[in-house]
Amino acid sequence: MSRKKSNISMAVVKRLPKYHRYLRELLLKDVDKISSKDLSKRIGFTASQIRQDLNCFGDFGQQGYGYNVADLYEEIGKILGLNQEYKMVIVGAGNIGQAVANYINFEKLGFKIYALFDKNPKLIGLKIRDIEIQDIDNLETFVKENNIDIGIICVPKSYAQDVCDKLVSNGVKGIWNFAPVDLKVDEDIVVENVHLSESLLTLSCLMNGCES
Amino acid sequence: MSRKKSNISMAVVKRLPKYHRYLRELLLKDVDKISSKDLSKRIGFTASQIRQDLNCFGDFGQQGYGYNVADLYEEIGKILGLNQEYKMVIVGAGNIGQAVANYINFEKLGFKIYALFDKNPKLIGLKIRDIEIQDIDNLETFVKENNIDIGIICVPKSYAQDVCDKLVSNGVKGIWNFAPVDLKVDEDIVVENVHLSESLLTLSCLMNGCES
Repeated sequence: MSRKKSNISMAVVKRLPKYHRYLRELLLKDVDKISSKDLSKRIGFTASQIRQDLNCFGDFGQQGYGYNVADLYEEIGKILGLNQEYKMVIVGAGNIGQAVANYINFEKLGFKIYALFDKNPKLIGLKIRDIEIQDIDNLETFVKENNIDIGIICVPKSYAQDVCDKLVSNGVKGIWNFAPVDLKVDEDIVVENVHLSESLLTLSCLMNGCES
Repeated sequence: MSRKKSNISMAVVKRLPKYHRYLRELLLKDVDKISSKDLSKRIGFTASQIRQDLNCFGDFGQQGYGYNVADLYEEIGKILGLNQEYKMVIVGAGNIGQAVANYINFEKLGFKIYALFDKNPKLIGLKIRDIEIQDIDNLETFVKENNIDIGIICVPKSYAQDVCDKLVSNGVKGIWNFAPVDLKVDEDIVVENVHLSESLLTLSCLMNGCES
């Protein structure tokens, strides 16, 4: 089963987490095999789209027999980078930061939150689950000493670039950015944005029939 | 200036909010005109991508003179549906629900939150800014009587479909869904998902070089 990494387009990358979620649900229901047609009914992509996507990175299906759910789940997990653990910190312990800290599902997938940071003295020292909110002044030392992989930015947009620079200069390779600003980083750093305003405007656009 | 609505693909729709954000910043800096080349430098899309996108829905640029920032901002705002107000409710007043309720930027764009709903007696009666958290039992009556346009679902996934059904059957046309589940709705209802786990898996995928 060879993975043809270089053939995965950004459009497919964006669909992979959804495949992963549906395949997990199938596994939990003890489903061993599934056809592209049945998977299509559940996941909402067309069967031909599914065959095309899954062909991109390996040979999982047998004509007429369907996909092996466990194999496919495992292989997609590997492509998603889930065969390792990630050490994360959250910067900004407001509502969004606390919400992310409370998502225990991330931990099950191997994403472990090591600390939250804030500059608000009223928050410093508090705990979200068992994760302590620390003084933002400790951020750089902590990130460096603990080999943090991913920094989650939940601060107001005017602070976001500065926080990003501090994370990256101390070894962080991935930034999950909730601030409504586009961060500037070197090419080897990955930024994934959650821009809530843009999502809401997409909703209103579609409600007004803007899509063809 | 004619809007060619039917030519806007989903890929363009997804880029429109970003254009809108950058154009607002230009307006705030009193920039009147901008070339596709200069816009490209700021926004990160290629100049030819920008010309192609903006050609989709009107004639804003003059060869060699650039785009009129105010006109383009207004027209993109119209396509995004921002020439009207939206009445919204949030269901689920946990961290995510409270975070969304605290985003005052949405209000500036015409999205007004009328109420939050929760089933937790400790939360009912509290206020986030000036918005009261009400008993979830009031949801259907409130949505119907106040002609709510958009429902924001911030409840655990096992409750999400039921909440969605209640919103839709009382007149809601758009669902902004933060629960990690794909909701089933009729064709005339728009759902925009914010699936945080999928965003995080996209990040780890890209950190492992999965994109071509």
